[in-house]
Amino acid sequence: MSEELNGNCLIAQSGGPTAVINSSLAGAITEALNHPCIEEIYGARNGVIGILQEDLVDLAEESQQVIRGLRTTPASALGTCRYKIRGQEDYDRILQVFESHNIRYFFYIGGNDSQDSADRINALAVERGYDLRVIGIPKTVDNDLVATDHCPGYGSAIKYLCTTVKEMACDAQSMGNHDYVGIIEVMGRNAGWMAAGTSLAKRKDRPEDPPHIILLPEVPLSPQKLMEDVQRILQKERFCLIVASEGLVDEDGNYLTTSGGATDAFGHAQLGGVGEYLRNLIEEQFGIRARAAKLGHAQRAAVHCSSETDNEEAFLAGQAAVKAAVDGETGKMVTLLRAEKETYECVTGLAPLTEVANGVKRLPADWINENGISMNHQFTKYAQPLIQGEISPEFENGLPNFVRIRGRRVEKNLEPYEID
Amino acid sequence: MSEELNGNCLIAQSGGPTAVINSSLAGAITEALNHPCIEEIYGARNGVIGILQEDLVDLAEESQQVIRGLRTTPASALGTCRYKIRGQEDYDRILQVFESHNIRYFFYIGGNDSQDSADRINALAVERGYDLRVIGIPKTVDNDLVATDHCPGYGSAIKYLCTTVKEMACDAQSMGNHDYVGIIEVMGRNAGWMAAGTSLAKRKDRPEDPPHIILLPEVPLSPQKLMEDVQRILQKERFCLIVASEGLVDEDGNYLTTSGGATDAFGHAQLGGVGEYLRNLIEEQFGIRARAAKLGHAQRAAVHCSSETDNEEAFLAGQAAVKAAVDGETGKMVTLLRAEKETYECVTGLAPLTEVANGVKRLPADWINENGISMNHQFTKYAQPLIQGEISPEFENGLPNFVRIRGRRVEKNLEPYEID
Repeated sequence: MSEELNGNCLIAQSGGPTAVINSSLAGAITEALNHPCIEEIYGARNGVIGILQEDLVDLAEESQQVIRGLRTTPASALGTCRYKIRGQEDYDRILQVFESHNIRYFFYIGGNDSQDSADRINALAVERGYDLRVIGIPKTVDNDLVATDHCPGYGSAIKYLCTTVKEMACDAQSMGNHDYVGIIEVMGRNAGWMAAGTSLAKRKDRPEDPPHIILLPEVPLSPQKLMEDVQRILQKERFCLIVASEGLVDEDGNYLTTSGGATDAFGHAQLGGVGEYLRNLIEEQFGIRARAAKLGHAQRAAVHCSSETDNEEAFLAGQAAVKAAVDGETGKMVTLLRAEKETYECVTGLAPLTEVANGVKRLPADWINENGISMNHQFTKYAQPLIQGEISPEFENGLPNFVRIRGRRVEKNLEPYEID
Repeated sequence: MSEELNGNCLIAQSGGPTAVINSSLAGAITEALNHPCIEEIYGARNGVIGILQEDLVDLAEESQQVIRGLRTTPASALGTCRYKIRGQEDYDRILQVFESHNIRYFFYIGGNDSQDSADRINALAVERGYDLRVIGIPKTVDNDLVATDHCPGYGSAIKYLCTTVKEMACDAQSMGNHDYVGIIEVMGRNAGWMAAGTSLAKRKDRPEDPPHIILLPEVPLSPQKLMEDVQRILQKERFCLIVASEGLVDEDGNYLTTSGGATDAFGHAQLGGVGEYLRNLIEEQFGIRARAAKLGHAQRAAVHCSSETDNEEAFLAGQAAVKAAVDGETGKMVTLLRAEKETYECVTGLAPLTEVANGVKRLPADWINENGISMNHQFTKYAQPLIQGEISPEFENGLPNFVRIRGRRVEKNLEPYEID
């Protein structure tokens, strides 16, 4: 235990939201209240943009109802952004804002880009001799952060996807008089974690269950093999359900589709349209009736069908971040680790931000079956525990009742700061 | 009460499934067991195809667990079809199958095409002097059957859509630093009931809530007006959520998009792609970032987020059909009627199949606000009661546990019959 550091804490959310990112926020706030060394509990509006613009809110003023409601409210209650920090000038400003508000604890809930930013903020504070503790809290439906067994947000996303696959499979099967191919396009830019997760929709020891074909970015698409797979399945089942990752690549390793070649602020290709691409391929070229669905952002927001396990672990990760910082840790990200037991048990750990920053955890190649379109028991063993348990928002008048933070603004001390 | 008619009953499901069509099946089976005049309870596999091919199953053999599980199992447990009856030859065959299996009660769960078929079967039986009672049971997410206040399946579909809209709105709002347009393409070929239903996602007296723009097939799309609406909303909200009906038409009344001009067995245009069409319009022509989601068949299968009210009414409709037939009614469809009370109460009635067959109930023009992109309080008053209450399938190992009927085949008496 290092010496006690007194001061304020700041929590920010970054990147694309998940169904449980607010559960981590609730966990961090709840835990911060337990530690007298943490004086004020602030949140940054819209991630790093709120820090740069000194747009902070006082989270200790939120009601207990709101903190509880956050656990079943999707998306980032503080707001988020995809702003790419522009370099030294921005980092200097961040530290200036921290100093001005006596921020001594910084908790950043985000994916790998955010952990990279957190790492740089931490390094700068060390360099300048500013006493600051920085702890990252993982979140991403993509499940692609390294050092952690899995990421909060992933379990809920695949629980929703599996439920939808099961329902759409019932639908397609009941229309049983015609050959029909249903395609569900799912998120997953570089790793097929989301698409792979839908394999849990198969019943135990029923590899022939839908989804019949899982197309992963790890396996380049061969139209010829796809045609053979589809025809084999149609012969047996009369319908074929395909789950396709948005990040699908051709045999040269190029993305099958990009939406007008657009890229985001980090230079990532904005993908979309794989489902329609495959529909067209199957319908026009193979002559088989096909329909594509694209669940879009619903995949990362569907708290109405989220995993209790995921929700609890997200909360736990928020708590663990605060505990670690109070204990003197900095420059780390909370990790979720699997206890080596017969039954699943999750504990938290810490990994250096430098290790996490910009790393990408690949779907292990040996978890993909040789047929290239399904996952083996190692994947099932890994993913099954993550979707266990149901948690639902409170419903009012027939619809989920989501909370909004009141968000009393903290008074600004500095001159305004321009961003793009 | 007419004289007692002894014999067997046959239940069939037709057309596109809903989240509650099996609840109507469960209601009909449960009620049929109460009436000794109904001897055997048969189901036809895959709708009218099963009747033509004498592919019948014995529903009385199903376990109580299965009958209960049907209430929360999506799609048509008996199977369904979109087969268009070919004329006299097919109708003759249907009656031949009925006679061969002493079918005296026929319950057809379906939309307007199915009610038309039921009407013709009834007329033929009358013409041939074959004592048969035919009662239709309404179902369609499209909510476009005439004579009934609303259709089983609709309430659940819009509850799911509203939930998804609320979740996607949280997501879009939390990404608040950029102008962003989210588009959700929803079902609805000729009437905008499904799209209109998403207006319930707005909080009371908050017309500015998402969905900000509802594009109905009843209101031809003006790109100029859409641009103005989108820009006005972005100025105020920084994001704009659009719900677009798949059946959107241009100012000449032509569908904006059809998937390769394909039509189904009834000659209806197979629609799809309105979301991507609008995304392209908004992104390429207006220069605003946009993303489209297309929930596809999930909309009619999402029993995990279905309406308890809808589920109960679907069950009630199944029961009412059997009661009516036993009471001597024929050539009717069960209707759902709203008791004239302050609080919502639903009772069943009967309407002649001739009235229902091929009619289409339009969304009342005076329920659409003058701005053409939102619904008024009359719509809210109509639709709000239909989404009340939550019902969920049993979850096992993290996922919904749907039932399958055992489906013991009834022995065939006739020669095989060829269909296309």
